[in-house]
Amino acid sequence: MTDTASGGAPTTATAFDAPSDGLDALFAPRGIAVIGASRDPAKLGAALARSVAAFPGHVAPVNARDPEPASGVHASVEEAAEHGPVDLALVCLPARACADAVAEAAKAGARAAVVYGGGFAEAGPEGERYQRELADVAERTGIRLLGPNTSGFLAPGRGLTASFVPGAADVPTGRIAVVAASGGVNHALAFLLGEAGHGVSLAVGLGNSVDVTTADVLNHLADDPHTTAVALHIESVADGRRLTDAVARLAATRPVVALVVGRHDVGAFAASHTGALATSWRTTRAALAQAGAVLVDDERELVDAVGALSLVRLPAAADAGVGVVTAQAGPGLLLLDDLRGRRAAVPELGADTRRALAEVLPPLTYQANPVDTGRPGPGFAAVLDAVAADEAVDLIAGYALHEPGTFDLVEAVDTVRGSVPLVLGVGGAGEDVRRVRRALLERGVPVAADPHGLAAMTGALLADARARRRTTAGTGAPRVAVEPGPGPWDEDRAKTLLGALGVPTMPRRACADRAEAHRALAELPGPVAVKLLDAAVLHKTEIGGVRLGVRTPDELDAALDAIEAAGASPTRRQPHSQRFLVESMAPAGVDLVVGARRDPVFGPVVLVGLGGTTAEALADVSIRLAPLGAEEAAAMPAELAGHALLDGWRGGPVLDRTALGETVAALGDLLAAHAGLAEIEINPLRLTAQGLVALDAVCIAAEAADAEHAAETTEAAAREGGD
Amino acid sequence: MTDTASGGAPTTATAFDAPSDGLDALFAPRGIAVIGASRDPAKLGAALARSVAAFPGHVAPVNARDPEPASGVHASVEEAAEHGPVDLALVCLPARACADAVAEAAKAGARAAVVYGGGFAEAGPEGERYQRELADVAERTGIRLLGPNTSGFLAPGRGLTASFVPGAADVPTGRIAVVAASGGVNHALAFLLGEAGHGVSLAVGLGNSVDVTTADVLNHLADDPHTTAVALHIESVADGRRLTDAVARLAATRPVVALVVGRHDVGAFAASHTGALATSWRTTRAALAQAGAVLVDDERELVDAVGALSLVRLPAAADAGVGVVTAQAGPGLLLLDDLRGRRAAVPELGADTRRALAEVLPPLTYQANPVDTGRPGPGFAAVLDAVAADEAVDLIAGYALHEPGTFDLVEAVDTVRGSVPLVLGVGGAGEDVRRVRRALLERGVPVAADPHGLAAMTGALLADARARRRTTAGTGAPRVAVEPGPGPWDEDRAKTLLGALGVPTMPRRACADRAEAHRALAELPGPVAVKLLDAAVLHKTEIGGVRLGVRTPDELDAALDAIEAAGASPTRRQPHSQRFLVESMAPAGVDLVVGARRDPVFGPVVLVGLGGTTAEALADVSIRLAPLGAEEAAAMPAELAGHALLDGWRGGPVLDRTALGETVAALGDLLAAHAGLAEIEINPLRLTAQGLVALDAVCIAAEAADAEHAAETTEAAAREGGD
Repeated sequence: MTDTASGGAPTTATAFDAPSDGLDALFAPRGIAVIGASRDPAKLGAALARSVAAFPGHVAPVNARDPEPASGVHASVEEAAEHGPVDLALVCLPARACADAVAEAAKAGARAAVVYGGGFAEAGPEGERYQRELADVAERTGIRLLGPNTSGFLAPGRGLTASFVPGAADVPTGRIAVVAASGGVNHALAFLLGEAGHGVSLAVGLGNSVDVTTADVLNHLADDPHTTAVALHIESVADGRRLTDAVARLAATRPVVALVVGRHDVGAFAASHTGALATSWRTTRAALAQAGAVLVDDERELVDAVGALSLVRLPAAADAGVGVVTAQAGPGLLLLDDLRGRRAAVPELGADTRRALAEVLPPLTYQANPVDTGRPGPGFAAVLDAVAADEAVDLIAGYALHEPGTFDLVEAVDTVRGSVPLVLGVGGAGEDVRRVRRALLERGVPVAADPHGLAAMTGALLADARARRRTTAGTGAPRVAVEPGPGPWDEDRAKTLLGALGVPTMPRRACADRAEAHRALAELPGPVAVKLLDAAVLHKTEIGGVRLGVRTPDELDAALDAIEAAGASPTRRQPHSQRFLVESMAPAGVDLVVGARRDPVFGPVVLVGLGGTTAEALADVSIRLAPLGAEEAAAMPAELAGHALLDGWRGGPVLDRTALGETVAALGDLLAAHAGLAEIEINPLRLTAQGLVALDAVCIAAEAADAEHAAETTEAAAREGGD
Repeated sequence: MTDTASGGAPTTATAFDAPSDGLDALFAPRGIAVIGASRDPAKLGAALARSVAAFPGHVAPVNARDPEPASGVHASVEEAAEHGPVDLALVCLPARACADAVAEAAKAGARAAVVYGGGFAEAGPEGERYQRELADVAERTGIRLLGPNTSGFLAPGRGLTASFVPGAADVPTGRIAVVAASGGVNHALAFLLGEAGHGVSLAVGLGNSVDVTTADVLNHLADDPHTTAVALHIESVADGRRLTDAVARLAATRPVVALVVGRHDVGAFAASHTGALATSWRTTRAALAQAGAVLVDDERELVDAVGALSLVRLPAAADAGVGVVTAQAGPGLLLLDDLRGRRAAVPELGADTRRALAEVLPPLTYQANPVDTGRPGPGFAAVLDAVAADEAVDLIAGYALHEPGTFDLVEAVDTVRGSVPLVLGVGGAGEDVRRVRRALLERGVPVAADPHGLAAMTGALLADARARRRTTAGTGAPRVAVEPGPGPWDEDRAKTLLGALGVPTMPRRACADRAEAHRALAELPGPVAVKLLDAAVLHKTEIGGVRLGVRTPDELDAALDAIEAAGASPTRRQPHSQRFLVESMAPAGVDLVVGARRDPVFGPVVLVGLGGTTAEALADVSIRLAPLGAEEAAAMPAELAGHALLDGWRGGPVLDRTALGETVAALGDLLAAHAGLAEIEINPLRLTAQGLVALDAVCIAAEAADAEHAAETTEAAAREGGD
């Protein structure tokens, strides 16, 4: 079962209902065979044999080539299976020999295998053939196959180190699962989580993912009682909807924190790594967040975030309030600055809270929010209690330098009666402060060493609470079903479609000739825009097919002359039957671009961005998978870097986010429901004092994949994928 | 000597030539008195007495109030000085008693003091008075005063812990100096540097900076043989030029890494902290970078950056080439992605290098740049050597998981013959990997635990090399001196000024009446723009004082009617003597905004941004202090988020950066040389296929500070200081 074979409904989280995923044999085997166990200690097979030596179940080295095998080394998996169960085969052979070895293991009863070596799809045509052979064996036999091209996995709670990386066996058992595209990143993260005092429940490096995919492991973890949070590392995605379904299912019960590589151009090296094609970084991030994952920018924040979320999860909330308590003003200022950058709500404290604080704090300290306790002392617990009792506070982020002899932070935490969760930063050095941090972790309090780490932890808890608020908000009321009819769509038909979707447009007339255009000028509120009306022309403005601000019949004639000349250019197909669109001009405002298109990996997506070349150059765009609820779509503008322009910038209009959300959701519905539509874009959708109005619209049929349309799609992709 | 008292020439790095800054008495005293030494162990004075107990010089506790002082406790500093030298007084008294105590210490021969307590300018009017009294004592007696409102400083190499924070004495001696606005941040950073294996040479928390300022400490460090790099934490700046002069002087010999707080709105809490006014975050960062500092975004990156720079400094280079070597592809991909985000040059390796790599690496590994070594092995050193020999490589960033038994990274580093510096990331957990990291640090190799830390270190080395390339490039040839004459300047006079500065404008006529306007229309290449010409009107477009695209006499009359109506509005002063500017329209292009204005902290600054509201809302602007060289100014557009728009976006024009740099430098020169000018702005400066052309210009006299001008300045500040 490969990632791409799942197909099915793209939208719900219920696609995966299989009672058994077969991954128990992989991650919880009764017995293991090491195929390719070698006498040479530098060889992979010897390293694996050392790694699994501590496994408490049956372990059987296999070497079919050694004419004089050492004692206990078997000539085949079949022979090994005679001495005990072999659920899992660890294959340490050159690429060309792996498919046969996996087939033989399956025949001997193994239900799972790991193929470690490289030389597959990442290494050229011959390797691609070996990889196809592996995929065939997995499909034919039903054996679950991890890899190839991976350093394996760790399940320290089972005493199982199915990895060749020295030191991997020292990673302590914990409650965090790592699911990494790369074996190296899997180990790097497991080591960092161990150092941070967390450990891992399971840590898996996917490698080339010929059979077992990220989605498979995530689905497996949804039923794992030993895992409370999941760290996800993504390099590329084969089946977008299967991944997001798995994340959504898992995130309902366990927080998922995701690090997506590829913000910048790393294509050539990435392709050499796993042989996979590049996936859009932005779309992947947007899709994961929409499914409920918390996004991070680097592996340190990943460790901070998943560590905090493995201990504390806030109730679903759009804007949970953070009470900031600091024993030193300077680090508190760093913390506050960082939290503001994460758009954390740091609410004013109530009068009761301030009264309570005034009783325990000296008068010179800052007692708003942040609360600065001045020198930390025995009153610290009382401060935490007072802030926790404030009804605007859902979470306390506290920072203190460790001050042995002055006050005991662990004792303070033990006496706190407050009912809101606590996340702490404890500055200091040496074994004593490490002891304090361990003691806090044991009490279920996430703890960082510095303000930035504390802000990252706090931000992760808030992002998770926000995501759950969204994912539990439903997809809104069902919308009117609109039938787009067959393409092509000229601007008039596209706007008729928008009208049916409830999107306002300006009064307009489609005119078959100049006389009709003159009648339209007389009848419509002026001034008007006059445009070439031809579905085959996607760039009207660029060829001179648009004239704005036309007020008089003379001006209209001049405009029609110019448009006819533009439309009669040699590249146009029907120079003699030109039609015109005459439309009332819209008032001034702020231009948006909204649209829906098909992503090759994730399927229908909707996009919201600001209009104009600057926004385009900055790739300032918000993306969601479609279909989606209007409420979810209404949250998209807040993600734009330039969102201030939509909130009454310099006295301008304020965006009605509900109306925008309904428009965007309607476009998404339309695309999701009609496979014949490749793309629909409103550019610009103008925000005016009277509300939103669509000034131009393009609607492209799926089959209309000629050169011009391909170029258009490439532009949209460039915009979305740019840095 | 307070920060604000220095004044003097704002531009050169030679302002500070004092042979002795008096800070030796503070940081390297022969003897110390603790004023307010207390018998109560919880009191500040008792904590300080414990902290300095280990000091190898003379230590004298002083308590003037205790009727029965303990043995060895003196009743006055004068008495204490009879038993040994007292260079430094540590004052642990309430705010109201500090000025007298410092005066008494000065009288008894102390040449430096630290005032620890709060309750000064950060705490309201009474505290402000106490702070003025302290400043007066310092100025009158010449005693150098650190604080008030600070936790002090550490000089572990001298056995001196002049801090009340427990554990501060455990920070090891190192080569990095910390200069922090906040005592808490000073300690937090010192602890982090200790944990990272670096330690500190000196770590100072400035507090309220009534006498000793950040600039003073930086100047002191420029002569400190024990310091090889400086970590700088800035909350606000009193005298911008004195700070940048100190940074420039220090950075010439020792790298300076700066963390500036206040990216987001933290004003209220910040004011409560030290009583200082907010300083523009963007301008402060720009000024520090221009002076040669490396900027970081959080305290972890600060530790990474200053740690690396304390061991390695690259030669000055605009784009030093990084050779990326990784033993695991996945972490290497994270590293490459991160480096690309830092605009690091990761050049193609030469044919010789590839040949050499092919000899030591297995064929399946990626051998471009990054170089993926596959499984790390004994060949690792040979790989490092081969990459180091490549002429495009100035620095190697290498990552490997620690693999005891497989290969020894320390041994590999010891055998490397390559001549370029090495920065390493070593993943793994446990005491063994910590030992490896320590061994690498001892060999002068900066080492991180993860790819992100490695990227931060590498980025810091590159930024330092780039800054030195800039600061050593000189300020360019002297430019033509232009005399702006007296204000006010209408658009025509402002453009005449631009013309004298060498900035192109379109052909234009200033017209005293309608007849002149008609003559201008007939003579100028059309179409033309027609504008109200009145120096008192700063927002011509907004009141309807601009008409574009005028081609015929009829259109001109209509335009003049409209402009006269707009100009005759009740708010205009001279409705009956209107003048007009008639100007040929410029071709289409990309609009920039460039200008020069006076920053209240840093003085003359120049700004470059993209035109339009989106760029404005995003505060996408590059800032430099003026005067500056044209070469430095030419580097400004590259800092804009939307810089792609200037590089031939969608077939558009490509910016001549030299021409832009000359224009910006000329504006900066003009403002720096003429105190009568408050601001000059070209908005827009259009980038066309024929080059840059100024379409509108505003020039404001310093004395013209009426309501309208104040509003304009506020807008400029809002733009520059936004989020």
